Amino acid sequence: MSQENSAGDAGGSQAIASASQAGYVIGADIGGTSLRLALADMDGQVLDKWKVSTAGIRDPLVVVDLMHEGIEQLFHKNSLSRSLLRAVAAGAPGVTDVDAGVVIATSYLMGWRDVPFRSLLEDRLGVPAAVENDVNTAAIAESKIGVGRGVRDFVFLAVGTGVGAGLVLNGRLFQGMGWSAGEIGYLIVPGTSVEPVETGEPGALESIVGGEGIKAQWKHLWRKDLTTLPQDLVATQIFDCAVEGDALAQMVLRKSAETLAYAIYNIAVLLNCPLFVLGGSVGMHPAFWELTKEVLAQRDKRVQPALLRSTLGPDAQVQGAIHLALETATTRRL
Amino acid sequence: MSQENSAGDAGGSQAIASASQAGYVIGADIGGTSLRLALADMDGQVLDKWKVSTAGIRDPLVVVDLMHEGIEQLFHKNSLSRSLLRAVAAGAPGVTDVDAGVVIATSYLMGWRDVPFRSLLEDRLGVPAAVENDVNTAAIAESKIGVGRGVRDFVFLAVGTGVGAGLVLNGRLFQGMGWSAGEIGYLIVPGTSVEPVETGEPGALESIVGGEGIKAQWKHLWRKDLTTLPQDLVATQIFDCAVEGDALAQMVLRKSAETLAYAIYNIAVLLNCPLFVLGGSVGMHPAFWELTKEVLAQRDKRVQPALLRSTLGPDAQVQGAIHLALETATTRRL
Repeated sequence: MSQENSAGDAGGSQAIASASQAGYVIGADIGGTSLRLALADMDGQVLDKWKVSTAGIRDPLVVVDLMHEGIEQLFHKNSLSRSLLRAVAAGAPGVTDVDAGVVIATSYLMGWRDVPFRSLLEDRLGVPAAVENDVNTAAIAESKIGVGRGVRDFVFLAVGTGVGAGLVLNGRLFQGMGWSAGEIGYLIVPGTSVEPVETGEPGALESIVGGEGIKAQWKHLWRKDLTTLPQDLVATQIFDCAVEGDALAQMVLRKSAETLAYAIYNIAVLLNCPLFVLGGSVGMHPAFWELTKEVLAQRDKRVQPALLRSTLGPDAQVQGAIHLALETATTRRL
Repeated sequence: MSQENSAGDAGGSQAIASASQAGYVIGADIGGTSLRLALADMDGQVLDKWKVSTAGIRDPLVVVDLMHEGIEQLFHKNSLSRSLLRAVAAGAPGVTDVDAGVVIATSYLMGWRDVPFRSLLEDRLGVPAAVENDVNTAAIAESKIGVGRGVRDFVFLAVGTGVGAGLVLNGRLFQGMGWSAGEIGYLIVPGTSVEPVETGEPGALESIVGGEGIKAQWKHLWRKDLTTLPQDLVATQIFDCAVEGDALAQMVLRKSAETLAYAIYNIAVLLNCPLFVLGGSVGMHPAFWELTKEVLAQRDKRVQPALLRSTLGPDAQVQGAIHLALETATTRRL
């Protein structure tokens, strides 16, 4: 019952306050393999989740339709009036102009170019919407409710199929002038290729540290006389086999961890950044995390950023989208 | 005579405005070889300069004495009352806690550790003072009156004896949580050493791109049958000889330019930064600048930041210090 919120008689102000608090938001994570939604109240508490496959889906309008369907189902299942939806925010796997609400480009998996996704959402759903890069939504979540909470400057590293970073500087996302800050898959460090990069090709760092790159490396190095393991393994399986003692798998793991450690070292030097948060299916692997920490610890005793694993895991993107939706509900009007 | 500035009668407000404008500031650049001062009016216009050698001087109190002496001389020579000095700001060659006014560490040349230089200046001069890293003061100047003017995000690269960067992000200096953002001499890129760094040793990038490093490389590679040039040359002489056709000098130049281009590429990728401003005696060398641009242009057609040479040159540090002093005059009271 603060004075700031009272307008006229106390009873009226309470009614207004409760009306402004009533409502729900949707946080969405659009991925190349699945679309995940979470329904949350205005305190950011998740009430329910929904998930659908996006394999083979490229058309943004189909994604919007799927989101619409998921939202209807979430509200219906939880016996809530759809009119209580206040805002929606989505994390998209690509360079995203947050001000314009446009996904500028996604990877070859989806191939979006200049998709006005915010408008598409707002037209279809009739509520304020926001769109942001998915690694950045994860960084928001780490900053609000994860291990980055209360840390002014930190970097969230998403190592999954590819590699990306979300930079939180001075307590805020730093997206860069062309909205592509943190596209660290293209970094070059000792041991990576220095060949000029062609559009559509994975970056130098990504081809050694990202899940697809690790898989490809394994395939490339694999020889019957070097390992008893099959040639078709995914990154986390290769890491598991490294832990179990396979020498070739250990070589691949070491190269990936060392390369990531070099990139982290460089970012820590440049930004004087004290914390890195590791997420993504590959990044969360304990052996990868441990070895990256080990290489980092040995490099330079004055540059010793903490390297923590995300505690939010695969929920980070959706959680960050919820926070963005809550902000959108109060800042944006249709 | 804008309405916004009038307070009560017009005559009174004019008197106040003129009183608040009367005064002068001093910008200082403390270097390992010289101390440079500039006297400026409250519009930042430089009226006079003063310079003295600092060779062999390490004691901060001696530097304060020299600054005091220079300031007295500047005011006396320009027939100005010393009481019109409003503020002083100094750029120091080391990691500097701007909030506390403390130079945390300078290179081995000066060897300062936790020097409360702002207090020393304020005690001696009796006016508000500020202290900042010298590369950062140069970046301030580039942002205010140099080629970085109006650019939201850019990086100033100082390549002299050593190598450092000043990061301007969202229109403001980004100094990092430990005030050492931009210490890019320690970056590792393809072709640099990955040996663990010991305190006091030059960084991996610095040993290839910085003036001292280039000199040392030349000495190391020099053999009578490889070049007719002497073994003792400084970086800019080596670059001059490269232009004149010496093959060994060309090799050293190419390695330095390539290494710097790799570092610039990485920073451009990470921060999505569209502009780099090259300064410092080595950085300003035309052949070095041209070749760095060439390597950068060939790397990745989507990552093509502009690389411009500073137009302020060796005045950048002092000019930035003047701007910092002007800010200090209005924000800090003793």
